[in-house]
Amino acid sequence: MPPTMEALFAERTKWMKASDVRELLKYATDPKIISFGGGLPSPDSFPLKDLKVIFDELLHEETAAAFQYGLTQGDPKLRTALAARMGARGIEASADRTIVTHGSQQAIELMGRVLVEPGDVVITEEPTYLGIFTALATYRPTYHGVPIDSEGLLTDVLEEDLQEMSDQGIRPKFIYVVPTFQNPAGTTMSQRRRRALVDLAAAYGVPIVEDDPYYDLRFEGEAEAPLASYDEEGWVVYLGSFSKVLAPGFRIGWAHGAPDLVNKMSLAKQGVDVFTNAFGQRVAERYLTLGMLDEHLPRIRALYGRKRDVMMAAMEEQFPDGVEWTRPQGGMFLWVSVRPGLDTRDLLPKAAERGVIYVPGHGFFPGTPKVNHMRLNFSFPGEGEIRRGIRILGSVLADEGRPRKGPLAVARG
Amino acid sequence: MPPTMEALFAERTKWMKASDVRELLKYATDPKIISFGGGLPSPDSFPLKDLKVIFDELLHEETAAAFQYGLTQGDPKLRTALAARMGARGIEASADRTIVTHGSQQAIELMGRVLVEPGDVVITEEPTYLGIFTALATYRPTYHGVPIDSEGLLTDVLEEDLQEMSDQGIRPKFIYVVPTFQNPAGTTMSQRRRRALVDLAAAYGVPIVEDDPYYDLRFEGEAEAPLASYDEEGWVVYLGSFSKVLAPGFRIGWAHGAPDLVNKMSLAKQGVDVFTNAFGQRVAERYLTLGMLDEHLPRIRALYGRKRDVMMAAMEEQFPDGVEWTRPQGGMFLWVSVRPGLDTRDLLPKAAERGVIYVPGHGFFPGTPKVNHMRLNFSFPGEGEIRRGIRILGSVLADEGRPRKGPLAVARG
Repeated sequence: MPPTMEALFAERTKWMKASDVRELLKYATDPKIISFGGGLPSPDSFPLKDLKVIFDELLHEETAAAFQYGLTQGDPKLRTALAARMGARGIEASADRTIVTHGSQQAIELMGRVLVEPGDVVITEEPTYLGIFTALATYRPTYHGVPIDSEGLLTDVLEEDLQEMSDQGIRPKFIYVVPTFQNPAGTTMSQRRRRALVDLAAAYGVPIVEDDPYYDLRFEGEAEAPLASYDEEGWVVYLGSFSKVLAPGFRIGWAHGAPDLVNKMSLAKQGVDVFTNAFGQRVAERYLTLGMLDEHLPRIRALYGRKRDVMMAAMEEQFPDGVEWTRPQGGMFLWVSVRPGLDTRDLLPKAAERGVIYVPGHGFFPGTPKVNHMRLNFSFPGEGEIRRGIRILGSVLADEGRPRKGPLAVARG
Repeated sequence: MPPTMEALFAERTKWMKASDVRELLKYATDPKIISFGGGLPSPDSFPLKDLKVIFDELLHEETAAAFQYGLTQGDPKLRTALAARMGARGIEASADRTIVTHGSQQAIELMGRVLVEPGDVVITEEPTYLGIFTALATYRPTYHGVPIDSEGLLTDVLEEDLQEMSDQGIRPKFIYVVPTFQNPAGTTMSQRRRRALVDLAAAYGVPIVEDDPYYDLRFEGEAEAPLASYDEEGWVVYLGSFSKVLAPGFRIGWAHGAPDLVNKMSLAKQGVDVFTNAFGQRVAERYLTLGMLDEHLPRIRALYGRKRDVMMAAMEEQFPDGVEWTRPQGGMFLWVSVRPGLDTRDLLPKAAERGVIYVPGHGFFPGTPKVNHMRLNFSFPGEGEIRRGIRILGSVLADEGRPRKGPLAVARG
């Protein structure tokens, strides 16, 4: 038998699979489908006029820093601007402890690379952002989920779990949370819980990865200070991103944390891709330093706030009894719970056939999934699409809600 | 004792270290130092006028494809343009079997991720591009080096080695080569050896990673067809890059290979960074499709050809007897051999003190390093700098060549 390529694949390659969300993007490119899936910002939010000003400036910079190779840790000017930005959020930050990454996803991957051995425990919210599962797949952690409610992570439950693990000699490698406008649930962790979480991290010596891409997208209520602002002992690694407030196409994220850790992440990144595209970094730095971001934010907030309102009003009107949803004060997502027993993954092809898609909740659970949830994105679709899409989804849910006769159900199977 | 962060580091983190070249970049930012280190293209080679045209166009594209999230495998238009480009090099290529990466380094990393388990054998040239060592560090292969001469990899030696491994039941995971204007040696593999190498890969079922970033930078002689153009069974993975012919700052590379492998690389990339910055991809596609690259190449070739000539002439004049060097017909590097017994790593601080740096050859060897080599880059420094730098290096080499009296040497130590 001739030698095959497959026989050469590493063990870890057998564990690779596409995330539910990425698979959905295939539908999303069909212009006839209304997509509540994906996590795309609105193209209307891209600051094209600002970008024109920035591009012209970068083409005339003496140093051509935008086009040459750069340092692995990231453009020093951008890191300085990021430290100031984090400072304004109450974080004691420095450029030295900041690393620029090719999107936040890479920062999570680097955390896994530096810390996680197969079988190590990583704690997540339940549900959690599903990108963590693909980011860490190579390092094969054991996930431990802690439920959330409208105030975010249940820190009492976490404390019990940490104590139990500690009794067994288990020290988790990190706790991954999206405390503000959580992906997928849209909830925001209360100040009380934030303080409790940071205290627990210090008490048990477990780093927190605070993924905070939506911080600037609050369209209602008072800002909650990041976990990192309560962190006195350096256990919080803070992740930020330009994907939701500038544009995803430049792929610029960052991480800030303890010097040892950032140094190791930087060494790891050297092997991974040497440095993050310099052009995107210079664009991000100019966008920050010239004050364009702060000028632009009210527009994005107003845009997304209106879209959320349209979606909430439409759901109120169109969804059948027994369906519940969260009410986010910012961000891009909300979380819908349909009646127990209904499986949103089974529902998806029916919804897609009628022209609307969403992300079934299954993929967001670190352990056994709860099957009666879905994540809806309100930032990408237009207001008219949101109304039409929710009407369709409401009718799909209403059909499923009706008791059916056995034979008919089989015939429709 | 309070819990420490270090105690959480994974085993693999202890193996991470900076490459010699990246460390040198620190010197390279000092404008007073003449750098023959690094692998930077000349800023004079950046097509700023073309970029202005492209940027304006991308800001007016209907789809805003340049700014939104994109597919993990890469922009379909760019992949189509790349397939055509590879076709013109004699490769039977398709967009489906092409993946866009965040620089070629990421393509090597993804190959490691998909194929390499700790202890697996990876074959390289000796010397080889040292980025492979950091790219694969996490996967901890065993390297097996095969020497090169002025015709490139010694395929006779490789055949013996492959047979010996095969007898022992060892199937290497891949053979990594830079056949054209090799980094670091500047040599180009002959057609005879190319055919032999591809035949060996097929006979032993071992993939070849053909890293070909300098293909378009030939300023003398006839083009050699890529290994991939001789590949009938799909064992060659072909890597290309825009870093040397457009600008490194966009960080756009690509890989082309067997469908199974590209599919797995794509799945792996999803976890690593989701997709390569869309803006850079659109810039690269426009640069190709509008014919700007082909219009621009003669200028880069002339620029680098002149610089090589200046360096060769200066070495001829300034270097003491017993020093030898390669004569590249393209690319960015040449390889200098000083007298046996002299260690170029010891020499470096002395050269740096007088204002010139280079990369000691040590880091390019997969096994025990030969210590009397250095890599010189001629693409980045200006012609005047090349003359001055070579004069300094010549005087450093001449000083070292002289027999010294014991006490004096100690006093200088």
